Parts: sequence; structure tokens; C-alpha cells
Amino acid sequence: MTEIKVELGAKSYKILIGEKIFAECAQFIFEKNFSKILVVTDENVLKACGEKFFSELKIFEIDFEIFTIPAGENSKTLDFAEKIFTCAIELGLDRKSLIVAFGGGVVGDLAGFVSATYLRGIDFVQVPTSLLAQVDSSVGGKTAVNHALGKNLIGAFYQPRAVFVDLATLKTLPEREIKSGLAEVIKVAAICDEKFFAYLENNAEKILNCEVEVLEKIIKRSCEIKAEIVSLDEHENNLRFILNFGHTIAHAVEVETNYKKYRHGEAVAIGMIGAAILSKISDAEILRLTNLIKKFNLPVKAENCSVEKIYLATLRDKKNLHGKINWILLKKIGETKISTEISELEIKNCLKKILR
Amino acid sequence: MTEIKVELGAKSYKILIGEKIFAECAQFIFEKNFSKILVVTDENVLKACGEKFFSELKIFEIDFEIFTIPAGENSKTLDFAEKIFTCAIELGLDRKSLIVAFGGGVVGDLAGFVSATYLRGIDFVQVPTSLLAQVDSSVGGKTAVNHALGKNLIGAFYQPRAVFVDLATLKTLPEREIKSGLAEVIKVAAICDEKFFAYLENNAEKILNCEVEVLEKIIKRSCEIKAEIVSLDEHENNLRFILNFGHTIAHAVEVETNYKKYRHGEAVAIGMIGAAILSKISDAEILRLTNLIKKFNLPVKAENCSVEKIYLATLRDKKNLHGKINWILLKKIGETKISTEISELEIKNCLKKILR
Repeated sequence: MTEIKVELGAKSYKILIGEKIFAECAQFIFEKNFSKILVVTDENVLKACGEKFFSELKIFEIDFEIFTIPAGENSKTLDFAEKIFTCAIELGLDRKSLIVAFGGGVVGDLAGFVSATYLRGIDFVQVPTSLLAQVDSSVGGKTAVNHALGKNLIGAFYQPRAVFVDLATLKTLPEREIKSGLAEVIKVAAICDEKFFAYLENNAEKILNCEVEVLEKIIKRSCEIKAEIVSLDEHENNLRFILNFGHTIAHAVEVETNYKKYRHGEAVAIGMIGAAILSKISDAEILRLTNLIKKFNLPVKAENCSVEKIYLATLRDKKNLHGKINWILLKKIGETKISTEISELEIKNCLKKILR
Repeated sequence: MTEIKVELGAKSYKILIGEKIFAECAQFIFEKNFSKILVVTDENVLKACGEKFFSELKIFEIDFEIFTIPAGENSKTLDFAEKIFTCAIELGLDRKSLIVAFGGGVVGDLAGFVSATYLRGIDFVQVPTSLLAQVDSSVGGKTAVNHALGKNLIGAFYQPRAVFVDLATLKTLPEREIKSGLAEVIKVAAICDEKFFAYLENNAEKILNCEVEVLEKIIKRSCEIKAEIVSLDEHENNLRFILNFGHTIAHAVEVETNYKKYRHGEAVAIGMIGAAILSKISDAEILRLTNLIKKFNLPVKAENCSVEKIYLATLRDKKNLHGKINWILLKKIGETKISTEISELEIKNCLKKILR
């Protein structure tokens, strides 16, 4: 079992990573003596690993209720948040109650947002079951729902009390889900750690075969990097911006394809190549990034997206300041720079290369 | 002009109280160089003092947009929050933008909630125009919307950058609005400051005649008390609870009368008498509180509310912990105690005395 601490003063918390972490989670919940417990999950997760998780909770005789949302990004809305609020009120959840976000990124973001705003904030824990949530979205306290006009536009910075990463859940995931998570792993390597990037290149096959030892290693390293960045800049005033590498274009692609055609990680893969092109790093480095993305069978171009529409969607990015897009770019693999001085022409020329 | 500081570390802010405060607000906004400015207000406020406020903004050549909600508690919903999100996105508000809550408690709570959750939080200032908002709801960072099942159940603790209390706005208020605000003034006196309570008793007539000097004094003292409590316990973990004196029953009365029959302050007046009865203070003290409430022409009983329904509604109060109602009671005028040990029978007997 690996333990990583996110240092945030009174709000500090632990990420536990390993093979029998559901039991650790149950023990944690048991010890805290919450007044009520509501588990938020989705249909797929419920089916794939609900029984396994719930049986651990039952060992400690923990009473809990379950709220299940349809799987997929389309559940990440204010409407579903309101449904969970209603459920929480009807069940009588109070300020000493707990919400458990048991699922992938959608469940984590939505349940986290509900936890942040129900009674002005109650405790929650993250039990991420997708690789993407385990390496990225469950750590750092970003919670959100989507708006019809853009992704994650409504939300809060609100930290979980703990994050429980059970590696066994990865065995239940379809291959496409794993690959989608790998995009965020490539991202943290690309922005912060060239050695880790090389490790991914050298171990691509083992990773795709889901060898537990290698998966634990890449999840651990991804969480370490993220925890360090979040500790230094919880509210994304400066440093934390770099975690958005690839995300400006990714969010635009997701909006324009109505969150249906591409998984988040797939869109990030395309967005990273776009950002690399805008970075004006050497062709060799762009190729190195592109090749790793291809190795993980992630897409390098977005289909059926027009340059004009994607461009307009990037203008609504949350990171924009004073009307200018705040681009996270690469100095080289493993190091970033930020620029607001990319012209419309440059952006559109870049988009032409990654859209078709 | 009076200046009060709410001490909250990096989140500290000032409350400015006086007769030409709109100009101070305009200067503040001008100096901060926000990327965009959205003023949220309601129809009544827009009509009564919109021109006066906007003309000050125009002196500094500040560009701003206005979002107007219908006046009244029924606008304080997730639906209206979503409408403001849409407006903010369409206008291109970014993380360097500002939302101005220009109105009473409803506008402040709703615009504050939107500010707390738009792009995970952007700056906002409070420009309270009702007495109730000036003495209570604009200070302390409680933001919220209502849920069909209860008041303020969805929200966030999110501090404004500053609060601007312009006394001239009080002249535009109907008498009933002023009285509703006075209930919260009585509240802070009753829980914290017996001398201030006596001042209210001795100056009731001047207060009801809206003499500016006296109004400034009671607003100042109310804000001082609130600022001190909030500085010590921002997130209502302990001390801040006492500000909810009278509110458990008040919220229940408001829900049961669909937020229509009683203004918030009127419901608080009734709730304070209920809480005083549950406090088992002397009859003389209960009478003293009742008499002050009557002096301000505030109601002392709620009409058309059944004991059973009000009782059930109190069970959904946000302050409840582990299924028990957390009652804020009086030791005596000027001092509080908290109790979770009030029986159903006691509560119902008390409700019989304040409902009809």
C-alpha cells in the first residue's frame, strides 16, 4: 500500500493506493462515526464493483444509502445535483454526514460539488474506480458540473477528507477507459517529469496489459506530482494552471461533440498535441509526444469538428483572463510555460492540423 | 463614514457604512481593474435606487451589465442561479471579473452563491439595499439558494471582497422592509449585548422614524457584532451558531407559508419568541423581548401554521446534528446557550403559544 499526503494545512488529506483499499475506506468511515452516509455512484460502477465495496462496508456494520446516476458525462449537470440534494434532504443528511463519491470522474466531480454545496459543505471521500479518476480528478478538490455552454463552468474548490484508490477496480474497466486515463498520466509526465515520460515510453506494453505493479507505479507518480502542485496552489492562481496542459482544446472538442464522441482522456490526447504545436518545441519533441499517445492507442486528431467552432469554444475556457486565452505550453518535455500571446491565426493553423 | 473590518486572514474585508457609499463602491471597482462586471439586482431595487448607483459607476467610466431578477424569495433558486450562469458565460465573465450583489438578502444570497460557484469562484461585492441585508445577510459570506424542501439548503461559505452600506437606500424602503430588518437587529442585541438591547428599547421611536443618525448607529453595532463572530468562526462550527437564534422556527414558518406570508425578519421575530419560551428564562425577560418586537410592529404569532407541520419542518434544519435539533437559546437577554435536549413535547407546547 502506498500513502501520499496532500498538504493543505487543516484541510490536508491522504491518498491511499493499493490492492485492498476498499477495506481501508470502510475502516476510515467506521472510525469517524458519521451521522448518515450516502454513496453516489453510477450504473456501470454499481454493477462492476458495487458488491465488492459494499461488502467491506457491511463488515463494519456501516449503514449507507445509494444514489445511482446514469453513467456518462451527461449526468454531470445541475439537474442531477438537484436530484442528489433532494435525496440527501429526504434521507436527513446533516453537517456530520458523509458523501462517498464511488466511481469515475463524473461521479467524483458531481458528488464533490454536491458535498461542497449541501448545507454549505459536508464531508466527502473519493473512491475513484476509473484510471482517469485515480490519477487525476479525485485528487485536488476540483468539483464541478457542466453547463450547456461549457464544461466544468459551475463548481467549487472543495477538498475530500481522503482518497481511496483500489487497484482491483481497474480490472473491471473496458480497455477504452484505461487508455483514456493514460492520457492524464502522459500529461503529468509531459509537464513535470521527463524521466517519468521515458518510463511510460519504455513500459507501454506492460501498462496496456494492466500489470498491477506497473499500474501502481504510474498511479503513485501521477498522484505525487498532482499532490505537490495542489499543495502549492490549491485555488489555481498560478502553478496549478499547468495541470490544464492540453485541456483548452480538449474541453472545446468535448463541447462541440456534445461529450459523446470522445472520452475526456481522448480529447486531452488531441489537445496535448495541439498545445505542443503551439509551443513551437522541436518537431522531434512533438513527434515524441505524438508517438507515446499513439502507443496507447489514443486519438491524435478530432473528427467532424470545424476550426471555427473549436476556436470559439476555446474563447470560453475558464482559464481565460481579460478576454485572452491562457495557454499552457511546453518549453520541452517535462517543463511548461504559459502564454496569452498566441494569435488567432496561429491557433487556427494549429487546429487545422489536429481536426479533420 | 464608519469602517468595520471582518478579520479572516487573506480573506479579510471591509464594511463601509455611511451616506455616500455608492461612490466609495465605484472607486473600489475602478481601482481593481476587473475584466468584466455583472450587477445582479431585482426589479424593485433597480427602480428605487438603480439610477443613483449606476450614475456613480458611470462617473468612473466603469462598463457593466445588469441581470435583474423578480423581487422576492421565490427567485432564490437553482433555476435562477442557472440563468445567471448562462448570462455570465454569454457575457464572457472570467476569473478576473466581478459580480456585484446590488439589493436585499435574496439578491445577496443568490448572487453570492453564483460568485462562489461560477468558474469555481470569482470576486463579488455586496451592496445591500435593505436594512435586513445591511445588518445581517451581506456580512459573513453565507451564500445560498433555497430548495423546495427547505430554506438555504444549498450554498457555500464564500466571502465578498467588500460590503458597501449606503444609508440613503433605506429611504426608498417600504416600512414593512425596515421592520423586517429590525428583527435581526433585535436578534444580535438579544444574543450578545444587553446594553444595545436597552438602546433599541429607548430609541424605538427614532428608529421607526428612520432618523439617519440612529440607523447608522444600530447598523454599525449589528455589523460589529456579526463581524466579530464571523472572524472567530467563519464556517459555523461552534460560536457562529448563536446567530441562528430564532431561525429554526423562522425557517420552518417560512417553508410552511411558502415564503409568501411573512418576510424573513417577521418569521425571525416569531421564532425568537419561540426560542425564548424554550429557553425557560423568566417571564419578565420573555415579556421584555416580546414588547420590543411589538414596539417595532413585528408579529409575535404565525397564522395558519399547524404545530405538526412546523415541528416536522424544524427537523430538517441545517444546524441539526445526528438527528437532533440544535437549539440556540437564551441564558438571559444578551447571552446564549445551546441545547439539543429539548423534547418533542416541549417543542410542540411552545409552538402552540406562537402559532394560531
